[in-house]
Formats: sequence, C-alpha cells, structure tokens
Amino acid sequence: MNLLLFSAGECDTEGQLHLSGRRAQHVCQVLKARAGDQLVVGEINGLMGHAQVVAIEPQYVQLSVTLDQRPPAKLPVSLVVALPRPKMLRRILRAAAEFGVDNIHLINSYRVEKSYWQTPVLAPDTVRDYLLQGLEQARDTMLPGVHVHKRFKPFVEDDLPALMADREALLAHPGNVPVAPAEPTRRRLLVIGPEGGFIPYEVEKLLAAGCRQVSLGTRILRVENAVAALLGRAL
Amino acid sequence: MNLLLFSAGECDTEGQLHLSGRRAQHVCQVLKARAGDQLVVGEINGLMGHAQVVAIEPQYVQLSVTLDQRPPAKLPVSLVVALPRPKMLRRILRAAAEFGVDNIHLINSYRVEKSYWQTPVLAPDTVRDYLLQGLEQARDTMLPGVHVHKRFKPFVEDDLPALMADREALLAHPGNVPVAPAEPTRRRLLVIGPEGGFIPYEVEKLLAAGCRQVSLGTRILRVENAVAALLGRAL
Repeated sequence: MNLLLFSAGECDTEGQLHLSGRRAQHVCQVLKARAGDQLVVGEINGLMGHAQVVAIEPQYVQLSVTLDQRPPAKLPVSLVVALPRPKMLRRILRAAAEFGVDNIHLINSYRVEKSYWQTPVLAPDTVRDYLLQGLEQARDTMLPGVHVHKRFKPFVEDDLPALMADREALLAHPGNVPVAPAEPTRRRLLVIGPEGGFIPYEVEKLLAAGCRQVSLGTRILRVENAVAALLGRAL
Repeated sequence: MNLLLFSAGECDTEGQLHLSGRRAQHVCQVLKARAGDQLVVGEINGLMGHAQVVAIEPQYVQLSVTLDQRPPAKLPVSLVVALPRPKMLRRILRAAAEFGVDNIHLINSYRVEKSYWQTPVLAPDTVRDYLLQGLEQARDTMLPGVHVHKRFKPFVEDDLPALMADREALLAHPGNVPVAPAEPTRRRLLVIGPEGGFIPYEVEKLLAAGCRQVSLGTRILRVENAVAALLGRAL
C-alpha cells in the first residue's frame, strides 16, 4: 500500500480521519507509523495529499488530513477483456487499476465458461476492493469504470462503435500481424480474448466493427501477461 | 498448455512417447484428445513438432512423435530481479519463461526479506516446473537459465560487468527519468528492485556499474506487473 485511501464521507469537517480494521492494522503493523509521522493519503475519486498521525493504537488510528494534489492522469486506455476465470479476473482488475486504465469492459465469448459469470468476484463491492488495491499500489484515487456485457454480439454491434468513436481499437490476437504499437499519446481501446482465444466468428465480427488486429510476437501469452504487456506498451 | 513438453530420454528409439500422470490427464481431460488426433509437442531444450495419439486411456497416453521445427528465438533480454516473496517468484519465473527471457538472475537487496531465501520455490526442480509451465503456455522448448546471487555487492561488482558486456542495462526505478525504451532489436539486461524499491545505496551502485535508470511512468507498479510491462516493451 503506497497510498492510504478513504471515502469522502469518512473524513470529518475538521479533516480528522478515524481508522479501524484493515487500514489501521496496515498503518500499525506494516508501515509501523508513530504519532507525528506523515502518510500519503487520498480520497477515493478525489484529491491526494498527506496526513499526520495524531493518535495510534493497535486497532485505531487518527489522522489529520490535508488534500492538495491532483491524482495522476489516467492512461487514455480502455480494456475490453473476455471474462477470465475468477482468479485471473482479480489480478486483471487490480492490474488495470494499477496501470491507470480508464474503463474496463468484461465481455462474453464462446470460450468463456458459463460458470465464470456466477463468480462472487463480480459483485460490485468485490470489484471495488480489487480496484482499490490497484489504486493503493499505484498512488491514484480515481476508480476506473467497470462494465459487464453478457452477450457478445449485442456488445460488438451496439456498444463497441460508441466506445471506438474517439479511440484506436486494437484486437490483440495471435497471427502474422505487426506487434501492438508502443506509443504513449494515442487514445486506445485494447480488446483481449479468453484463454484459447476468440473463435474465428468473433475475430471476424471485431474486425468488421473496425478493430485492427495486432500481436504480441509469436508466443502465446497468458491473458494477465498479455494485458500487462499491452498496457506496458501504452506507457 | 499449448505445447506438450517431454524430456529427451522419454521418447523411445521409434519415436514413441508413453505418458502417465499430469500430462496424460491433461491430454484426456482438458484437450479431450482421441486416437488419431494430432498434438503440438516439444522436447525440452530441443525441437518442436507434432505427435499423433496412438492409444489413449484415462491414465495413459501413447504418442507417435515427429520433431521437425525449431523453437522460437529467445527474446534477447535477461532479467535481474531482487528476490520477491515466494508467491510472486512463482509468477515471475513462469512469466519470464513465457515471454522468452534468456536468463533470470535473482539477487539480494536490503528490502528482500531474509526468509525469502529459504522458500522451497527456489529448489531447482520447483524452479524448473514453473519455467516449464511458462514454456508450455508460450510454445517454446528452451529453458531460460536461472542464477542465484545471495550477496548484492559482489553481484554488482564481480558479476554484473560481464552480464552487461553485450547488452544495454536498464534499471527500472521510479523517478523523473524517461520511460523504458520500447525497441525490439536491442539486447537488454533489465534490473528490477524489490517491493519498496532498491535503497539509495543500491541505486548508486547499479548506476555506477553502468546501468541507465528508466521508469514506467509516474505510477508505482507491483513487481510482477513491472516485469511484464518491461518485457512487453521489448517485443
């Protein structure tokens, strides 16, 4: 945790923040903070700043908060990912928030197992927890948007055109095509298939919608590594 | 598993490969192969090719192997990573093999917890298992070299100069420095610190040895995401 995040409602009118639970434990046990120490803090979807430790006990921390910095700019990148298995979904949500992705679209695909849609990881509070872990790591306060699209064809036909309006859409799919461009300035929509890849029909639909196919070389990468490699190429 | 790997000694003189255990189960249950099917196979540190399923039972598979293809070229990239905690070490070994890294050097650093050096993940057979998982994913047969350096200063002073002789050495460390270059052609040595980063003394030693400091933007990435992002920029 490189940034301690709190919700707007948690700070009182005098800028005092009272923590218990996981965050208090972290401040005590991992950061080993003492009264008078300064911590880097941020208000979720708000400003960042610092906080002075006013009081500290094993299960309770009081902080005096000053917010005076903007969070870093979001990466101008949206991710469209075929819903991965729950374990990988957790990592991808965290990584996407960490890299500063602005929006994450989880879509269906022929090779997405139906059971994946039932995972408790998709509960809004759980999604938010994983996103917050990514923001805490990266020192950012702005939650990315997460959008769920349970049907492939309606997503490609009805939703994708609007998402692509101001962005270059790149479909990362193995093949004899150039490697994804490494340019920091372009607004991008990155489309990544499931383990085993999109089926030919899905690739055709995505290309017909205007996506450009790119590769990550000749090797077949795990979805989470493909995501991080593509985001790395957008830095 | 996109490639079924076997050791040189496993295939008999008539090219017949007899599998049991994990690989036989995978062929039966995940690939759902039947007699006559073709699989993509490779000999560890040797050629790749295909194999026809000759016989198949729940716990036993016989394959007739033909090896006629070279594995893909290695990425001309070596990794130098401060030993991460065991869970992350497993993922980094797998990812490094997956991306095609040629050598992995695990080094000590002030912020590496001493207990990490005791992890069973560092046992040679376990390291090999994680590397093989990466090769199976990426369709490659060539194991990267893994080298352990338990003392930081002797590594930097005695080993690093030779490792850097034919490569550009990049130290990925947060700071007001340019983002790591994204160029596929250069031979590279990528140096990545522990969670919390190298301490100033270590950064100085690495810079004095000739490493060039680069960043991955203003965000602080988890080690595993920093590794994948840097490798993504070398594709």
